[in-house]
Amino acid sequence: MFREMRRKDRKLEKSEAVEILKNGEYGILSTAGQDGYPYGVPVNYVYVNGSIYFHCAVIGHKLDNIRNNDKVSFCVVGPTQILPDKFSTKYESVIVFGRAVEVFDDEKNMALFEFINKYSSDYPEQGKEFLNKKYKATIVIKINVEHISGKARR
Amino acid sequence: MFREMRRKDRKLEKSEAVEILKNGEYGILSTAGQDGYPYGVPVNYVYVNGSIYFHCAVIGHKLDNIRNNDKVSFCVVGPTQILPDKFSTKYESVIVFGRAVEVFDDEKNMALFEFINKYSSDYPEQGKEFLNKKYKATIVIKINVEHISGKARR
Repeated sequence: MFREMRRKDRKLEKSEAVEILKNGEYGILSTAGQDGYPYGVPVNYVYVNGSIYFHCAVIGHKLDNIRNNDKVSFCVVGPTQILPDKFSTKYESVIVFGRAVEVFDDEKNMALFEFINKYSSDYPEQGKEFLNKKYKATIVIKINVEHISGKARR
Repeated sequence: MFREMRRKDRKLEKSEAVEILKNGEYGILSTAGQDGYPYGVPVNYVYVNGSIYFHCAVIGHKLDNIRNNDKVSFCVVGPTQILPDKFSTKYESVIVFGRAVEVFDDEKNMALFEFINKYSSDYPEQGKEFLNKKYKATIVIKINVEHISGKARR
């Protein structure tokens, strides 16, 4: 169903693609709008048990798109380095395709704690307070990963 | 037609958004697939006379998507810095919506020279040779920008 990569020489093993996802600071979430325009926006995220989680406000563009069409893609780019004399760039990136779904209760809690672990691990107590304060105003979306591919020029 | 930003406190002036585009090393191009999946992929680009240009091979996923639906979005993220104690991130980003169209002849040449200027400015002669060699196997796509918005937390 999902395409094979054209440039097989640049294709990464799945384990390498997963490493990029695990190490990424943010990703670009692409959703499809009802008006035919795709919408790519950077989001912080956590990768837990093979799924991607991000959070957002209870209203907004990406949420509207997802509620209309749950098919999304998610791209994380690792470190890059321009190679001026090669007319090329060193890079590594991963692209995920999947379905976005809102999560609740235990799964929402788990994901939000993982955000604290990833981004604010030195502030666990303040993190809990922050989550309590923001909990109701925050929606957590899970991307059920259907396809993952990594690509690199090293 | 295009949405207003929800978080007005983080909205940048258009001139600031343009600066991010001018300074960006790469952007994420989001296109919409016939199968309903958006596709976000990193590409190098140049920003010339208010338009974005990128190049690609003569076959591929993004080209198929664009030929089916020319509506695209393009996202460039500037430097980011996690603020662990704020449970937030410093960032600046720009999101463009527009229509993608292949360009030819003089406009194709101009865009490819701008790539050499941007990424390989110390190698103008070798750049010309490289372009001559790759010219036929390269497609240049222009994004006619319809909407541009910048956002930051600083």
